[in-house]
Amino acid sequence: MTSVREVGIERVDGERRASERDRVVVEAPLQLRARGTPVATIMRTPGHDLELVRGLLHAESVVAGAITQLDDDAVELDVDPAAFAARGLLSSAACGVCGRVAIADLEQRAREVTADTIVSTQVLALLPATLRAAQSMFADTGGLHAAGLFTTGGTLVAAREDVGRHNAVDKLVGWALDAYVEPAAHVLFLSGRLSYELVQKAIMLGVPIVAAVSAPSSLAIELAERFNLALVGFVRDTRCNVYAHGWRVR
Amino acid sequence: MTSVREVGIERVDGERRASERDRVVVEAPLQLRARGTPVATIMRTPGHDLELVRGLLHAESVVAGAITQLDDDAVELDVDPAAFAARGLLSSAACGVCGRVAIADLEQRAREVTADTIVSTQVLALLPATLRAAQSMFADTGGLHAAGLFTTGGTLVAAREDVGRHNAVDKLVGWALDAYVEPAAHVLFLSGRLSYELVQKAIMLGVPIVAAVSAPSSLAIELAERFNLALVGFVRDTRCNVYAHGWRVR
Repeated sequence: MTSVREVGIERVDGERRASERDRVVVEAPLQLRARGTPVATIMRTPGHDLELVRGLLHAESVVAGAITQLDDDAVELDVDPAAFAARGLLSSAACGVCGRVAIADLEQRAREVTADTIVSTQVLALLPATLRAAQSMFADTGGLHAAGLFTTGGTLVAAREDVGRHNAVDKLVGWALDAYVEPAAHVLFLSGRLSYELVQKAIMLGVPIVAAVSAPSSLAIELAERFNLALVGFVRDTRCNVYAHGWRVR
Repeated sequence: MTSVREVGIERVDGERRASERDRVVVEAPLQLRARGTPVATIMRTPGHDLELVRGLLHAESVVAGAITQLDDDAVELDVDPAAFAARGLLSSAACGVCGRVAIADLEQRAREVTADTIVSTQVLALLPATLRAAQSMFADTGGLHAAGLFTTGGTLVAAREDVGRHNAVDKLVGWALDAYVEPAAHVLFLSGRLSYELVQKAIMLGVPIVAAVSAPSSLAIELAERFNLALVGFVRDTRCNVYAHGWRVR
């Protein structure tokens, strides 16, 4: 079980671009089984798994007997599976913490992004300030995540905010589904970190380029690679890190 | 429906302390009903609710007919309730995005923190750097949330990290349950924002003081007030904002 993984990235700084090794935090599913029955899957960083499960059960007032690590991907609980249904503590893909597994599930529902859309690093560099300027509530409260849909020329098409980063993306996707926009020609830009769940939502919408001001998880990178998306993190001034499908970033 | 709420805070800056008005982002439950049956509750910032639901259903591949806003707290979907169970898209308190409602639920399971624990602003000012120094993985990846349990003297007792902020707290709680520590004598310090879900976990553990480097939501404040917790945000250098039970902060 490892918490940090080394990956190949392209580090962009103005006109310079170099292939390097970088370290990203691991995000991986942990399945909870109650007397053999799978009852929930938590997306987490491996390590301290038993404490994680113990704390989660405590927050949920689920009283379990022995908690046993079966392997790196699963924990067995001595508790009636019905205790989970009763507390509504079932896996949900509506959030980044808990989620059903993962790529296999998505392969049944989504397709690779086939469009050959590309974006320039000069345009990417403009997106953070443009999104921030559109954030009506952030300046007031400092407590909001934002998601913006941009053209490859850097024009903001729509932005949404929410206390939950997944909600901000869901609001933007919900808008896009009813708007006259072609997701495959656009860039999704996010104010926070890039987890599995957010990349999944981009894939379901069909956006080929996802960028953010902060770091991606290992699973976000795997998902982007598999579904043909460019994944760009740490977009700050003229710098950024490209984690997948760098051919989309010129 | 309002997205930002004005609250009374105490703004601390070194020796100075002033009562002020401040604005916090609203976090409130939105109930989804499928043909009259409640199927999920999403914690969200009010606004663009129908887009939020549309986007969420899209990510989950749930095909619904009409989506109708019933009131500020509920949306009605023309879809078989079974479609939600089938996708595992049920409400879960295991995450900050979706959660069962809220204070009423918690009142049945948790009690007010009765200990009269207090902490000084001088100690609070030290916590961010101490937690950061203990974060083994953050420096590598920039992608991790951290949670630390501190004595009121500022000594770090334990710290945990995870790609999910709820997981970091769950790991810490899971550790504390088996350790010889008295939660009521400690301070929980978090690297990110303060949402309802994180304060709930602190209450379930019995920690009387919760502080963080960033902003709280409206519901986090309400919960802290109700359960007798001090809630402190924007802890940076010698400054911080106290949102609830300021008598615990000297």
